[in-house]
Order: sequence, then C-alpha cells, then structure tokens
Amino acid sequence: MANPSFVLRAVKDVAFENRPKPQLRDEHEVMVHIAQTGICGSDVHYWQRGRIGDFVLESPIVLGHESSGTVVEVGSAVKNLKPGDRVAIEPGVPCRRCDYCRGGAYNLCADTIFAATPPWDGTLSKYYTVASDYCYPIPDHMDLEEGAMVEPVAVAVQIAKVADLRAGQTVLVFGCGPIGVLCQAVAKAYGAKKVIGVDVVQSRLDFAASYGADGVFLPPRAEAGADPVRHAENVARIIKEKFDLDEGPDVVLECSGAEPCIQMGVFAAKKGGIYVQAGMGKEEVVFPITTACIRALAIRGSIRYTLGCYPTAVELVASGRVDVKRLITNRFKFEEAEQAFELVKAGRHDVFKVIIEGVQG
Amino acid sequence: MANPSFVLRAVKDVAFENRPKPQLRDEHEVMVHIAQTGICGSDVHYWQRGRIGDFVLESPIVLGHESSGTVVEVGSAVKNLKPGDRVAIEPGVPCRRCDYCRGGAYNLCADTIFAATPPWDGTLSKYYTVASDYCYPIPDHMDLEEGAMVEPVAVAVQIAKVADLRAGQTVLVFGCGPIGVLCQAVAKAYGAKKVIGVDVVQSRLDFAASYGADGVFLPPRAEAGADPVRHAENVARIIKEKFDLDEGPDVVLECSGAEPCIQMGVFAAKKGGIYVQAGMGKEEVVFPITTACIRALAIRGSIRYTLGCYPTAVELVASGRVDVKRLITNRFKFEEAEQAFELVKAGRHDVFKVIIEGVQG
Amino acid sequence: MANPSFVLRAVKDVAFENRPKPQLRDEHEVMVHIAQTGICGSDVHYWQRGRIGDFVLESPIVLGHESSGTVVEVGSAVKNLKPGDRVAIEPGVPCRRCDYCRGGAYNLCADTIFAATPPWDGTLSKYYTVASDYCYPIPDHMDLEEGAMVEPVAVAVQIAKVADLRAGQTVLVFGCGPIGVLCQAVAKAYGAKKVIGVDVVQSRLDFAASYGADGVFLPPRAEAGADPVRHAENVARIIKEKFDLDEGPDVVLECSGAEPCIQMGVFAAKKGGIYVQAGMGKEEVVFPITTACIRALAIRGSIRYTLGCYPTAVELVASGRVDVKRLITNRFKFEEAEQAFELVKAGRHDVFKVIIEGVQG
Amino acid sequence: MANPSFVLRAVKDVAFENRPKPQLRDEHEVMVHIAQTGICGSDVHYWQRGRIGDFVLESPIVLGHESSGTVVEVGSAVKNLKPGDRVAIEPGVPCRRCDYCRGGAYNLCADTIFAATPPWDGTLSKYYTVASDYCYPIPDHMDLEEGAMVEPVAVAVQIAKVADLRAGQTVLVFGCGPIGVLCQAVAKAYGAKKVIGVDVVQSRLDFAASYGADGVFLPPRAEAGADPVRHAENVARIIKEKFDLDEGPDVVLECSGAEPCIQMGVFAAKKGGIYVQAGMGKEEVVFPITTACIRALAIRGSIRYTLGCYPTAVELVASGRVDVKRLITNRFKFEEAEQAFELVKAGRHDVFKVIIEGVQG
Repeated sequence: MANPSFVLRAVKDVAFENRPKPQLRDEHEVMVHIAQTGICGSDVHYWQRGRIGDFVLESPIVLGHESSGTVVEVGSAVKNLKPGDRVAIEPGVPCRRCDYCRGGAYNLCADTIFAATPPWDGTLSKYYTVASDYCYPIPDHMDLEEGAMVEPVAVAVQIAKVADLRAGQTVLVFGCGPIGVLCQAVAKAYGAKKVIGVDVVQSRLDFAASYGADGVFLPPRAEAGADPVRHAENVARIIKEKFDLDEGPDVVLECSGAEPCIQMGVFAAKKGGIYVQAGMGKEEVVFPITTACIRALAIRGSIRYTLGCYPTAVELVASGRVDVKRLITNRFKFEEAEQAFELVKAGRHDVFKVIIEGVQG
Repeated sequence: MANPSFVLRAVKDVAFENRPKPQLRDEHEVMVHIAQTGICGSDVHYWQRGRIGDFVLESPIVLGHESSGTVVEVGSAVKNLKPGDRVAIEPGVPCRRCDYCRGGAYNLCADTIFAATPPWDGTLSKYYTVASDYCYPIPDHMDLEEGAMVEPVAVAVQIAKVADLRAGQTVLVFGCGPIGVLCQAVAKAYGAKKVIGVDVVQSRLDFAASYGADGVFLPPRAEAGADPVRHAENVARIIKEKFDLDEGPDVVLECSGAEPCIQMGVFAAKKGGIYVQAGMGKEEVVFPITTACIRALAIRGSIRYTLGCYPTAVELVASGRVDVKRLITNRFKFEEAEQAFELVKAGRHDVFKVIIEGVQG
Repeated sequence: MANPSFVLRAVKDVAFENRPKPQLRDEHEVMVHIAQTGICGSDVHYWQRGRIGDFVLESPIVLGHESSGTVVEVGSAVKNLKPGDRVAIEPGVPCRRCDYCRGGAYNLCADTIFAATPPWDGTLSKYYTVASDYCYPIPDHMDLEEGAMVEPVAVAVQIAKVADLRAGQTVLVFGCGPIGVLCQAVAKAYGAKKVIGVDVVQSRLDFAASYGADGVFLPPRAEAGADPVRHAENVARIIKEKFDLDEGPDVVLECSGAEPCIQMGVFAAKKGGIYVQAGMGKEEVVFPITTACIRALAIRGSIRYTLGCYPTAVELVASGRVDVKRLITNRFKFEEAEQAFELVKAGRHDVFKVIIEGVQG
Repeated sequence: MANPSFVLRAVKDVAFENRPKPQLRDEHEVMVHIAQTGICGSDVHYWQRGRIGDFVLESPIVLGHESSGTVVEVGSAVKNLKPGDRVAIEPGVPCRRCDYCRGGAYNLCADTIFAATPPWDGTLSKYYTVASDYCYPIPDHMDLEEGAMVEPVAVAVQIAKVADLRAGQTVLVFGCGPIGVLCQAVAKAYGAKKVIGVDVVQSRLDFAASYGADGVFLPPRAEAGADPVRHAENVARIIKEKFDLDEGPDVVLECSGAEPCIQMGVFAAKKGGIYVQAGMGKEEVVFPITTACIRALAIRGSIRYTLGCYPTAVELVASGRVDVKRLITNRFKFEEAEQAFELVKAGRHDVFKVIIEGVQG
C-alpha cells in the first residue's frame, strides 16, 4: 500500500484508508516514515465530538499528532537532516508571516498546519511530510517510543516556560495525568525545591509520588451543602499547611481543567505568585477574581509549544532526567489503532499513555 | 487644638476629635501639616461597612489617605526633606524586612502601616507623621490639591507598570471613574496608539472622551433571557470591530470590578495580550478560563503602588501631561468632612473627585 | 527604461544601469515603485570601502535601503496590501526558518535579504520587490518623504526597545546625528522625564536642543597628557552634576560609536542602569569593565529592527510626535544620486539627512 | 575573653584583639556565636592593599565575611530565629530605605553594612550581631562548615540569576576558582545542557571536570607578536568548535576577571546571548564593543547577592546538589588565622578554599 492511514471520516467514524504517498510541498520539507504515535485526549475528543473550540471536523482527517519516525527523503534546501535520521516531530508548522510568528509566539499563529486538527491530516499514516525545522533529531540511545513521547514533554516544557519556573521554587501542580506528572518531573529537573501533586485518583497520586512529586494530595470532598468556593479556599489552606508552603507555592500549574482545582490554585498561590492554566475543562468557571487582584497574581495561559521546547524536551529525555518510558502503559500495532482509541476513551485509571506503532516495512 | 482629626469611631459613626499632636516615631520620620485630602471609595467603604477583606474596624481610626501637605519637622536622619517642603504622601509604609519588601514588592507587605486601613490612622488630621522616603516633594508650580491627587495617579501608574504598557499599543480600559480615566491619560502619556474607554454612564464617557480616551463605548444591554457570558463575548467583538482593534487590544485594564466588564475584557484581549485586574467588585465572577488558556493571556492583579510610582506620578502632573485639576468636582473645608463623605456615598454621576482642605493655621 | 538603478559596481565605482524589471519571487511578495530613499552612513561605507564586517562587496549591488514607495503589483497570497497603497519598506527580510526567526529575534538572522548589503540589491531602482509583511502602509496625510524616514525612526524605536525605555526615566544620549536625535525624540514621545544629548559639534547640539533633548552638552577636551579614561570618568561626573542626574541616568543610549563616549556612558550610568550600544566605530575600545561589573550595569547591543518597530515608527511619524521633515536638509533627483552620495561623504555639519527622489513615471 | 577578634589594624598589619562583647543594635538583631569562616580574595586584598575601589581602610576592622554560627541571643522583634539555631550569615545588611533597597536591588545599596568592608567590622570574632532577616537557618544534616560555604554558593546563585540561567542552555564559564566551579555546579543543578569550564591552571580544570563541568579547556598561548584580541577571537572559535557550541554558548559567565578571558567570552557568545561579568581584575580592558553591538549581546555585571540567593544556596547545599565540602582544602584554628591568610595570599594551585574555625566555648 502507498500510504496506509488511520482516518477520522466523521464523528465516531474511523477507518483505515490507503492514501496516495504524499509529496514534499516545498524544498524545505522532509518525509518521515512514522514509527510511533502516542494518543492524546484531543485525538479522542475529535473522534467523539468532531470539534474543539473553533476547529470543526468538516471532512475526513488522518488522526494522530504525537509522533516520531525516520527521515526517508529531504528537500533540496534541507540542511539539518538527512535520510536515516531518527526524529521527534513537532506537530504544528506555523505560517511564519503573521505577527505572532514574526514575534516569536508561533504557538498563537492562526494559520498553523497542526497535525490532526481539522482540516489538517495527522501523523497516523506510514508517511508524513513536514517542514525540516519542525523535526528534531534524537540521539542513538533514545528509542522511537521515547521520540514520540517528546511531544507531551514539550507541552510540559512550555508550561514551565510560561511559568518562568526556576530553581529553588515551590510548585503546586493540579492534575496527575500525563501532562501533570511531566510538569512535576520537569520542575524537579529545573531544580524546584518542592513539587506537590494534586489529583482525585489515588493511583495517579501514587504514580506521581514515585515519579517527580515530593508530595501528593487527594483533596477532601466538600460536605453536603457547603459553598464550593469556600471549600476550595479551605482546601488551599490545608495544602499550604500540610506541605509547609508558608504563604503559598511560588508557582501553581493547573493541568486538570477542573473548576475546583482552578479555584484551589488561585487561593493557594502566594502573593505575587504565578498561576498557569494549562488544563482545559469547562469553558467558564466561578473564579476568585478579587483574590487574584489583591494578591497581585500573574495568571497565564499555556498552549502548545514555542521555540526551544522540543530541543529541551529531547535533552530531558536523552539525559534520563525525565523517564517517559514509565508513562507508557499500553502498546498497539498500527492495525489495532481503533482498539487503542477505545482504550483511551474508556478512561481507566490503570491506562496512562497509549502508543501505536507505525506501519512497518 | 493640638491635632484635630476626623475619626471613624465605628461603622457609620464619624466624629471630629482633638487628638494629641503626634511624635516622630523614629529619626527617619517627618511630620506633615496636611493640606488637602481626596476621598476614595475605600474610605467610604470602611465608614459604611467597617471592613474590606481581612481589614476590620475594631477600634476608632482617623480617615483619609490621599493627602498632600507641608513638612513641619524632620527626624535627625532625614536627608531628602526639610521643613517647608511641600509633599505628596504615599500612604503605605511597609515593614522593610519581609521578603516582599526585600524583593521590591513592598505593595504586598502584610505589615504595611497604611493610612486609614484598620488599625492604622489616616491623614484627615492636622498633623501626620510618616517615613521620609514615603514623602515626595512637589515642584513650586504644583499646588497642594494636585499634590493630593498624586495618589490616584500613582495607582494608575502602578496599573500601567503591571500592564507593562508601552508606546504604540492599543489599550482598552473598562471603567471611566477616576482610576479609569487616569489610566487612560497615563496610557496616552506613555505613547499609547489608541485608548478606548468603556463605561455604563454616558456622562463619564463624555468626560473620558474629553480627557485621555481616543474613543469611548457604552455597552448595549443584554436582551432578556440572553446568556450573559455570550452577551459579553458579543460585546467584546463589537468593541474590536468598532474601534479597528483587529484581533483585540494589546492591553486590557479592568478598572470597574464589574462582572460583565471582566468577561468582556478577557474576550476582547488579543492572543498573548495582557489583562490587568485593578477594579474590585464581587469576590467571585463567572470567568472565561478556557479563552484565557488557549489565547495564552497574561492576567495580572494590580494593587497599591511600588517603587517609582509616586515620582512618575508627580512628574506626570508637574509636566502637565496629566491634568488632575479637571477631576476635582467638589471641595470642602475640614469642618465639612462629613458632608464630603455623604456626597461621595451618594454616588451622583456629576460628582467625580471630592477633596477636603486640611486644618488651617 | 525597464528598471533604472543606481549601482555600486566596485569600491568607489558607482553608475546608473538599466536592469530588467524584477519579478515577484513568490506569491507573498509585492512590487513597489520606489518614491523616496534616504542615504545612510552604511551606504557610503560600502561605496568607499566595499565591506562592513563580514559583508563584502564581491559583485555589483544596487545601493539604498531607506525607502518608501507605491505598491504596483501584489502576489496572489497577499492580503495586507493592494496596488496603489503607499508604503514604508523594512529593508531586511529574514529566512523565517532559523532559530532567531522562529524565536522572534529576526534581526539576528544570518540569512536575511537586506537591501544594499552584499550580495543583495538595494532600493535605488525604479522597482523593488519585497515580502508583503515587510511593507507598512502609511496614512494619507503622511507623504512619501516621511515614509522613507520611517527607517531611521524604526532604528531608534528598536534602540528604545532594547533599552526597555519607560515613562519617567532619565536618558543620556551620546551622538546627535540622525539616529541620536531620533532616539531623543522617541524617548520624549515615550514619556521620558529628562533627555540629555551629547555631541562634539555645536550645531548638532543646537538642533538636538530644538528637537527632542531637554538639555545638551559638549564635552570638554582632555588636557594634554591626561589619561583619556580618567578624563571620560570626569566628564561623566560633570554631566551628572550639570543635569541633576543624581547617581546617573536610568538609561544611556550610545549612538556615536566614539571611544570616549562609550567610556563616558559606562561611567555615567546609574547602578543597575541600562546602557545600549547602537553606534559603531572602532572594533575594540578601552572599556571600564570593573565599573560595569560592580555597578551591575546591563549593557546591550542594538542592531536593525524587530517586530513592531516599523508600525510604531509609522505611528510616531503619523501622529506628529516625531517630526522627520526637520531632519531632511538636502533633496536630490534620482539622476543626481552620485552628487547626493558625495554630499553625505563630505560630512559637512550642515548636512543632516539627504534624500533621493525615485524614478518618475 | 569577651570577644576575641582577628583585626586588620593597617595595611599588612593584623593582630588578635579582645574587644568588648557587642550589643544588639535594635530589636530586630540577633547575636551569633561564629562557628566557621571562609577566606576570600577580597579579605586578602584589604590586608595587603587596604582598599578595594571606593572602600578604603582608614581605621582598624575585624576581618572575615563568609561565616556560619549559632544564634545565642535574639532581639524582641525577631520571629524567624531562636537561640540555638544554626545559621548561615549574609554579610551585607542594606539601609532598607534607599531606592535600591525599596526596589529590590539591595545589593546596590551604598549604605550597606558589609562585614569586613571598611569601615565595618567582619565576622572573625567570637560574637557577631546582625539583622535577623540576613541569617538563614541551616537544616540539621548540614554542618557549620557547609554553612560558611553558603556565601560563595550564594555568589554563584546571584550570577546565575543575573544570567537568567535556564534548563537546557549551554554555558561557558571562564575561571575555575571557587566561584567559577560553583557557577558550573549551579548551572548543572539548574538543568544546563552543557557546561564548559576554562582556566589556565590544569589542576583547576581537572577539579572542574570532576565537579560540575561537562568539558574543560586550557586556552593555548598566543604566538609571539600576535595581536592579543585576534588571538582571543581565535580561541573563542576553537572553543565553539571543540565543544559543539554551534553559534556559541547561550550564556557566558566570566569569573576570572582576566582580560583575555573577557575578550574570548564576548567573541564566544551566541548572537543575542548573555554574558555576565563577575570576575574582577584590571579596571579597564580592551573590549570588542562592535561585536557586542552587532551580535546584540546582553552584558551584565553581577555583584553580591539579592533576595532569594541565600535560601536557594542553602537548598542547593542541603539537597546535596552542590557539594561544598570538596572545595575546602585547608582548615585552621582561630588562633592560626594569620597562617590561613598567608596561605591564601601565596596562591598555591593546591589551595582552593581555606576555612577558619571560630573561637570555642
């Protein structure tokens, strides 16, 4: 087959298709034989609902965007890669011409070609073409599973960058899913003094405690009839006391998107502290804006990645400071892609990161 | 009388008292004969409700914190001032020893002696003692009314600092009360390209348009039954279109504290833009957190002032770039202080800034 | 003629040539009929010496890079411009793919196509093609001479950006040539409290005093046999005393490239202050490095422009805050280009900015 | 004896004196029984020359400023310490009232009481009194030698802060003395990707390689008659090639103060990179200013410490990420203080850090 692909044809309708082998779009592109692809919540979201925000599925797209592979062809202007190079692929290539791109905020470019975001095809094909500067060579001792896992590490690296994370800080992370625990590991690799993970699932907390977190916390439920905001404020105080965080952590990383966690995070942050919103859940939440004001908090959203995230993520994995292998709980063959998606959809607590092997040969 | 003072004895209970003349607390202090004092919403708030946040009126305090005056005595270690100097008084003197103070964020010091914030006396006395480095000389051509008005200008200067306001930017300001219009004037003085003011009172918009704003806007009311958040999103779009703000203003300054304005502000800000919360209203609001996240907004609270705000505010007034005289609508003698407070409490649209002359002689 | 051009054929060898009319290189380019072109020291430098740093004249190039014009053709992907638009041209189009470009520091891109920098042709032709995002429309009330003068204003805007220039600051500028006085004017437009200009030519100081500077200074010569570094240190002290700069200016902008000015600037800057090197003279100078260290100075080089400089420069000119017309002392027809260059080369004190009209018709 | 002290009476004239036991100067001070004191080059400099910059020995002072000890008395307002606490002492207590102090740059305060800087007494006494917020408790598992070594670690932490050092960066450090190797270790603890140390003494390079550096380099001597600046430029290129630093390291930390190293550092830094001057040697050096300009370098001086340096340094030592024990090569009793100073003065390559035990009992 020319280019076997796993395609989202419509909401809840996936299928394998054999598509024509792609061509390099210009002399700066390379063709990658995809080796490994991790599945992310957003992939499942498009599958089940057909849209995220302004991105709406209107025609079939190939799924997948967390991939590694081997370069098989390079355009005439490509200098940083050659056939045979093993690479991690940054899945969004921006327009390079808008003010965001020209100013270094290419993660905000509205015209980014982002893998598996409608109308753009993703990476769950045998071959994928991409601009060479968005492919990052991985060293020999890193395998291609680790190469695929560079993507979520790069998300965590961007979160740390937005948080201006520095050595010696105390960091409170809400959410102990893949992004949350990677943020915890990245914070420790950056020299954080104390990293605390919060989640509502005990097994995730156990994993976090064995991974990057210095301490973990399962928030108590509110009593019946309690005001949920006051409950969140109380829990924030409990967290600060339990973990000797004094006036609060220097940095809060919100990776759950859950309304109570958002509230707890704002109440927990120290005066003048930094709170990063990285998780996504409800569009609107009840938010303690006066606390944010009088404590002079800096609240920042983090989305995708910017320059340097991928190289730093490769370095963190290559140096062993972030062990991504431990996150992978389930592996599937390319032909089993739908089963892999079903497994992620099920949301079992023992399933952490699911990865799909590329088309062989 | 030794030190006639206007005292808040308990909630809704004010009176004139003759207090002992204060003594310099240490060799770094100066004694100021108070000349003019502006009234601010927080003064009225303590009068009517007895508390703001954690600050609770538990014993009588002198009111007033926006003051100017003439130095009448200086401690032995004072070098920057001499008797006869006319000064604007920064009303909060921090502890100088906590991490916030040592790190330059003295506005966050929990042990600040802040005029007219329980349990600390304010400036509506004949004499007031204060650390010499929190008194700023005003030039001869500035009068003492202008000296008192330095305080709200300094609030606006801090908001502009938190917003990292720069020449050439577009700035959307919610609220056209004293702080709002001062923010607009400061933004223009800093070289802003376009400043838009929003308010629900037409007369305030008229004033803003004649003061610092390049354009003003009165948001339409939501139709009955409309989702208020979607309405706010719509209004944000209307503002952007009406004033050619493209993807949105570079900077949003929220000076109203009103929930719909907070929502509009978040929806209006451009991707990667800055939103500063300076107004205070409801403790919690419904907040478009996902928009803040995916647009990578920087949301910051602004409170009080930090190093440089007072000197810059003095300079803005002295150079004529911010005309504070136009804000003063009502003047009272010291003996009429209660009438002045009643007038501010009434909240009439034609009352902008009320100022009380100090004790003569 | 198809495309009359003023060509530097070899060192000290210029000539008019009729070149083929250029073609748009891709769908993102526009063709501009050049209207006005300012002459800059670097143009003369290539003419007389054939090289600046690593850029060496090895084959003929068209001269000129400070230009405005009218769009006459647009590529199929161009959205921001249409034929008839009057534009200021940013003369360097970077590669968009290196780390500098992707990170927002496109002024550092080694593969920039920069007008009149070998081997790239400049703008002294009838027609010039350039990427549409590097052309900036100017409003109707700005003329094309002002459009050409946007370039040096953009240089000053970048210097101000590198200096992190803010309202209320004191600014000491070395050099009162075009870039120096524009820096002074930009500083005032940004709300600087006090701007002092330094030069060794009295007529330039007179102009600076009538333009943006609040004060000007002609440094005394060192006495025979005096240590030049100690002399510079003395002059720095004199400047601080004369202009009430206390511990020193907040910001030093070095726009002369002269060794004594560099030394004076370092000695003058306040502790923790910012010094920007924008002028270029000798490759190496005797430099007070210990002073830079113990005063914790921030010393930064400024080169070319980054995102936002051109729009801000257009705005400064369009709003009248920077009057570039006053800088133009001499105007030439296209056919008189060599005379124009000779005049600039002569370096007369009464010649400030020389501008060449484009090919008519 | 009341307060045995090691006193610098005049240039090259030291003696033991028994001074009166000091009194707490105010209610915020604590009295520390000094336990260990490291010797630093500046101590020796005052001994041998009597001045550093503006600080001139005009009357006897006690020597020593890198100390730890045990709190024996606390003022009535002290909350963070109690008798018996073991502390590292930050040796400079600023005025808390100047603009530098109020703005968070207390390292630049001109009125700092800095131990062993004329006219202020140092810590080589039995007892030393100091403001409680400049004493930092050390955990039980850290000994008092490690406590004294917190000082040079804090110097390195400040250098890293000035350099805005971040994970994933490449860092080139000139000088492999105590500050240099501590900078290398701190950089690694902060997640630096690659740290290279440069020195002219092989034994120091060997130590650096076994400590924090990923690679070390001994610069070749210039050939007779070679231009020293061009030689420095060449060496910079060799370093970049040898260590695969591409366009140059992200960060250069100059900890030697040697003119050739300063030149190499500027030539080595990547475009837009950061160069920190921390070492001090000649007052003026020949400096490649044009390279600094066209490469848009950020050159910053680092001096002393600011908020957070001491706590971070304690944390780095306590967590084992920086092993300061390995730096100590020679230990002396208090009575042997002069021998200790003689040893440091001798400058032997096998003497790295010399430490003096405090007065017992």
